[in-house]
Amino acid sequence: MNKIFQRAKDHDNRDALAGFKELFHVPEGVIYLDGNSLGLMPKTCSERVRDVAQNEWSEGLIRSWSEAGWFHLPITVGNRIAPIVGAGENEIAVGDSTSVNLFKCLAAALKLRPGRKVILSEADNFPTDHYIANGLAGMIDGYEVCDLNPGDDLAEKLDESVAVLILSHVHYKSCRIRDIPMINKAAHKKGVLVLWDLSHTSGAVEINLKADDCDFAVGCTYKYLNGGPGAPAFAWINPRLQDQIDQPLSGWMGHLDPFAFTPGYRPAEGVRRLVCGTPQVLSLSTLDEALRLWEKVDRNTLFAKSRAMTSFFIGAVEEVCADQPLTLISPRDPAIRGSHVSFDYDNGYGTMRALAERRVIGDFRAPRTMRFGFAPLYLSFEDVARAVEHLKHVLDGQEWQRAEFNIRGEVT
Amino acid sequence: MNKIFQRAKDHDNRDALAGFKELFHVPEGVIYLDGNSLGLMPKTCSERVRDVAQNEWSEGLIRSWSEAGWFHLPITVGNRIAPIVGAGENEIAVGDSTSVNLFKCLAAALKLRPGRKVILSEADNFPTDHYIANGLAGMIDGYEVCDLNPGDDLAEKLDESVAVLILSHVHYKSCRIRDIPMINKAAHKKGVLVLWDLSHTSGAVEINLKADDCDFAVGCTYKYLNGGPGAPAFAWINPRLQDQIDQPLSGWMGHLDPFAFTPGYRPAEGVRRLVCGTPQVLSLSTLDEALRLWEKVDRNTLFAKSRAMTSFFIGAVEEVCADQPLTLISPRDPAIRGSHVSFDYDNGYGTMRALAERRVIGDFRAPRTMRFGFAPLYLSFEDVARAVEHLKHVLDGQEWQRAEFNIRGEVT
Repeated sequence: MNKIFQRAKDHDNRDALAGFKELFHVPEGVIYLDGNSLGLMPKTCSERVRDVAQNEWSEGLIRSWSEAGWFHLPITVGNRIAPIVGAGENEIAVGDSTSVNLFKCLAAALKLRPGRKVILSEADNFPTDHYIANGLAGMIDGYEVCDLNPGDDLAEKLDESVAVLILSHVHYKSCRIRDIPMINKAAHKKGVLVLWDLSHTSGAVEINLKADDCDFAVGCTYKYLNGGPGAPAFAWINPRLQDQIDQPLSGWMGHLDPFAFTPGYRPAEGVRRLVCGTPQVLSLSTLDEALRLWEKVDRNTLFAKSRAMTSFFIGAVEEVCADQPLTLISPRDPAIRGSHVSFDYDNGYGTMRALAERRVIGDFRAPRTMRFGFAPLYLSFEDVARAVEHLKHVLDGQEWQRAEFNIRGEVT
Repeated sequence: MNKIFQRAKDHDNRDALAGFKELFHVPEGVIYLDGNSLGLMPKTCSERVRDVAQNEWSEGLIRSWSEAGWFHLPITVGNRIAPIVGAGENEIAVGDSTSVNLFKCLAAALKLRPGRKVILSEADNFPTDHYIANGLAGMIDGYEVCDLNPGDDLAEKLDESVAVLILSHVHYKSCRIRDIPMINKAAHKKGVLVLWDLSHTSGAVEINLKADDCDFAVGCTYKYLNGGPGAPAFAWINPRLQDQIDQPLSGWMGHLDPFAFTPGYRPAEGVRRLVCGTPQVLSLSTLDEALRLWEKVDRNTLFAKSRAMTSFFIGAVEEVCADQPLTLISPRDPAIRGSHVSFDYDNGYGTMRALAERRVIGDFRAPRTMRFGFAPLYLSFEDVARAVEHLKHVLDGQEWQRAEFNIRGEVT
């Protein structure tokens, strides 16, 4: 392990992002490799949310809708996310969950492609994407979801029956990165729209929504963006489409003039028409706070650190655990790998539990995937080296035998 | 005014709920008649939300999904609301906005009545109800929204083409109460399901969802339930229907076994199948905190105080402002009046602004409705008498002339 710790030190000495770690609360003794599930809390968030309750809500009351900017939060918070994902000003709406935003965007896509009745959906995508696609298609006679299975030829599946293709940019289990420019081009050639799920992308992996001519994107903010548990999701629509969008979750907060209380729905201009009901201000303001520190983050440095860190982890594990039957299911090429690393292992569940007892927190995806996430903003290479050392001890000592068998109870 | 203050004192001396006021933060000098828009903050909420961030999120991290009970919050918070609306244990799911919940319930109702293609919707309902009904019908060929206009004979409109009728129990402007048992019976006789919007009901007006054999109900928690700005909404489905419900916002958190990550959606048992994406935990926990004080509230005392207070306000206004052209648009009969009182007045906007300058906060609904809300938990009759005295001064002194003309910027 000595050489590995030396390599870690070399990396850390060159890490231009090392200063960000102190902006987060790290529980005593914890090495947190689960920022791809729920990000650490930026230290200022707990005071900010108390302040929003104490001053904006209890003192300001309803006038905070204008004076504290609550009404505009879905867009102002979106503007903080925009540079992280390669989007422009006023192009992102924040609110509701990722699932609800998937529904809005898929429904809008179907309206844009009348006559086409197929949603093409990756069968092994994160389940909610597939569930929502099926929920939507099941509402409307004649519509259906066509599964894209591993090994299928995407180009063959893209035909004139397909309205929209839904894919994750970074796969939640394997961490494989999809080739966005190539897929967009292939889809557009057949008139198919593409909805990208950026849940495992935003805040860790390079993405250029506008430059790569994407159509729709949604994403999660409680992973690498550290917005807090269940923080509201974001949705982006290419500006060339925004004013044509007609989506069925047409709540009053997406109306052109909500306070006119007129009977007919008229969508707001641009992406604001994706806003539906009244936003959950306490959660949304906390996300706003968490995003403030991103103003000082250099995107390319961040993405490079993610790649270096996952490479470092894979190399170290394969070096010190060479005698263990671990199967790397993440890509070996950092150019097509996101910010977590997954190993399949028969004793994976017990191993993750034993690591947790050593305060190394990763997560487990049934039936046998051990998932280690690397949030570049608050992890050092030394943290990663120490995690590998713990993993070696757990495996060598067969500590996985001691973990009780309960493979539920933790959340992506 | 002396007699009015004396009557107020008599009421206050008999008020069994008087002790609750001190549990709320009331801004210095404010008389708050807008609890029907955004309720005051229970004093413990700001500390609770900071604590959830500080301890459950930043210290507990992902294990809080099980150990802090985050996963079950949609149902445990629903169980706090149940007794207030006459529902049973595990019958209410909390999360998302009222608008999103309207969509889920309407879509579920359409599935329960195949072949019926009409949503009957009150044209002058709070706009979001009507917008959502139209958004849903507009997705599916052959479906339509039929308007129920003021003066229409409801019985005539209920026929075999109608799948579901959507109504507010308490009208957001007039405050008129609909006769739930009678309407449910008339609708059920024609096989029509009824979705009740309880946004202006829950926490102030008597409602017995189960005893009155309702089908569906949704409601807002940031008004009389004081859950905070944009607090998550609730949805109830009659237990006789729950296991037949198939709703299209089929996100992973409503799955029977979300952590199995299986490709096919299987709805959770009971009302949990209305949960869609990951809940916004900070907002939901704050609502949980706000609902704790309801354990000690006697429902019937609360509803009686609401009726007494609105009657007292109407009587006092009509007595001391008798020479002013105010038109009461709320029912005079307290049995069919909810917990706010609306007067139409040509100078209504300026009047509400002038009252706000005097720290009497009500709200205004275009084009000419002055709306005064009476939250029985934290208002005294003396507060109401003082509000009437201010109103008299504003009207007598024509203070409405000084208010700038800007009829936007405040939110229901």
